[in-house]
Amino acid sequence: MRGGWLSVLKDAAAEVRRAIKPLIGSRESGEVVGLGAGGGFSKYIDIVAERAVVEYVDRSSIPCVLVSEESGVKRIGEGEPEVYLILDSVDGTTNAVRGINFISTSIAASPTDKFNDVEAAVVMRLDDGGVYTAEKGGGAKYNDADIQPSDVRVLNKAVISVELSRSPGNIDRVVPVLKEAKSVRSLGSGALEICHVASGQLDAYVDVRRMIRTTDIAAATLIIKEASGVILKPNGEPLDNVQLTRLERFSLIAAANTELFNQIASLLR
Amino acid sequence: MRGGWLSVLKDAAAEVRRAIKPLIGSRESGEVVGLGAGGGFSKYIDIVAERAVVEYVDRSSIPCVLVSEESGVKRIGEGEPEVYLILDSVDGTTNAVRGINFISTSIAASPTDKFNDVEAAVVMRLDDGGVYTAEKGGGAKYNDADIQPSDVRVLNKAVISVELSRSPGNIDRVVPVLKEAKSVRSLGSGALEICHVASGQLDAYVDVRRMIRTTDIAAATLIIKEASGVILKPNGEPLDNVQLTRLERFSLIAAANTELFNQIASLLR
Repeated sequence: MRGGWLSVLKDAAAEVRRAIKPLIGSRESGEVVGLGAGGGFSKYIDIVAERAVVEYVDRSSIPCVLVSEESGVKRIGEGEPEVYLILDSVDGTTNAVRGINFISTSIAASPTDKFNDVEAAVVMRLDDGGVYTAEKGGGAKYNDADIQPSDVRVLNKAVISVELSRSPGNIDRVVPVLKEAKSVRSLGSGALEICHVASGQLDAYVDVRRMIRTTDIAAATLIIKEASGVILKPNGEPLDNVQLTRLERFSLIAAANTELFNQIASLLR
Repeated sequence: MRGGWLSVLKDAAAEVRRAIKPLIGSRESGEVVGLGAGGGFSKYIDIVAERAVVEYVDRSSIPCVLVSEESGVKRIGEGEPEVYLILDSVDGTTNAVRGINFISTSIAASPTDKFNDVEAAVVMRLDDGGVYTAEKGGGAKYNDADIQPSDVRVLNKAVISVELSRSPGNIDRVVPVLKEAKSVRSLGSGALEICHVASGQLDAYVDVRRMIRTTDIAAATLIIKEASGVILKPNGEPLDNVQLTRLERFSLIAAANTELFNQIASLLR
């Protein structure tokens, strides 16, 4: 795979931002217009966002395999694919539809279909265009400045974000974590929340609903790893061997450091 | 009391935004520099923000009684006070210190020290300067456009925000609400979250920690009432008789409508 994917990913994310800007908070944005390849409902805003990426890739004549929640696995362009592009075009669809200002688009590039081989990653805020980036071995950045996690190592001093939606059966599991944390947030865009851990705005992000898809976190995972943060399944297993082209679902904890990860994991019921 | 307070409040909020912009997400912003009148720690960013308002009011020669978490009740200017100004200069201090992009400043104007007499209110987003406003009897607006709550009337279709920080003893009370809601958020700036209910971005906001202060919600309460939303104590009592100059603490539920309020209140343990 040739290098330099970061600028391609950034351009693609900027296309998404431009395409969906007029839709944020509008009634039509939330209309269900089909079933995604992952089995979820596809909303109008998701479709518009994904189309922006497909058209950009097509226009740029980049033969690739696009992996996304909406389309599944799709070859684009002529000839041998140069890259796997792993896309979550709107991360935080509910926020986007309602007009809550915390939404991102997430794109990763990999030469193979293995999670651990992702080489470049972009998570862009769709409100102000601020962009988290990483290249394998090159560290992580926000708007071109190096980022790193916080040095908070105990939960009772931590600001954490916990997913609490659409999974009543899992609320009880996280209650001890909610009680022990200093401050609890739930912001509604997992990729952006993981990036907030990477850059020290949050100390941890917890989603134990077994609902995260590969497409949601391929980019954010490289970003937090390159920032020297921790991202693991709650049992401590790494995500490395997850296949990008299988729309697997799992749970994870992202944390500023191992001490905080361990404390959160041990409190889960 | 003379009318036209809205432009004064907007100008004061804009001064806060200008003053704290360079501090957001910085280490110094979170340094504890004293004890507030309400008994909480005052952080550097709170002090800078409040000073911006005091200086603006002073410069504008508006004799007033300023009521705030940091200073308590304070007379400013010469002669008979024209107005009570109820100020929460940074609502979402943790977000501001950490650089999480959901922060507001909140100012209300009242001719008396009774909550129900508040005549004008401003809640300004400190990221982009977007501003929620209301004048008694004149409806509520966001950036000069009329706002109204959503028409979601059942919790299992609702996007709600629930305060979960710093109150382990109250987590269990809200667990049934968390389980029943469609989507749960916790965004970290109560005044801004109440305004999100007023304008339909959220369907309800729940804080049963008995930690909300009059100063936090004097402005947001007028805004949601003028938008025809509901804001009550969990037992259904109105906030009307709360005294602005007493730094009382209480719980509340803001909701798009009575049906949703009732459903949430009945689920609290």
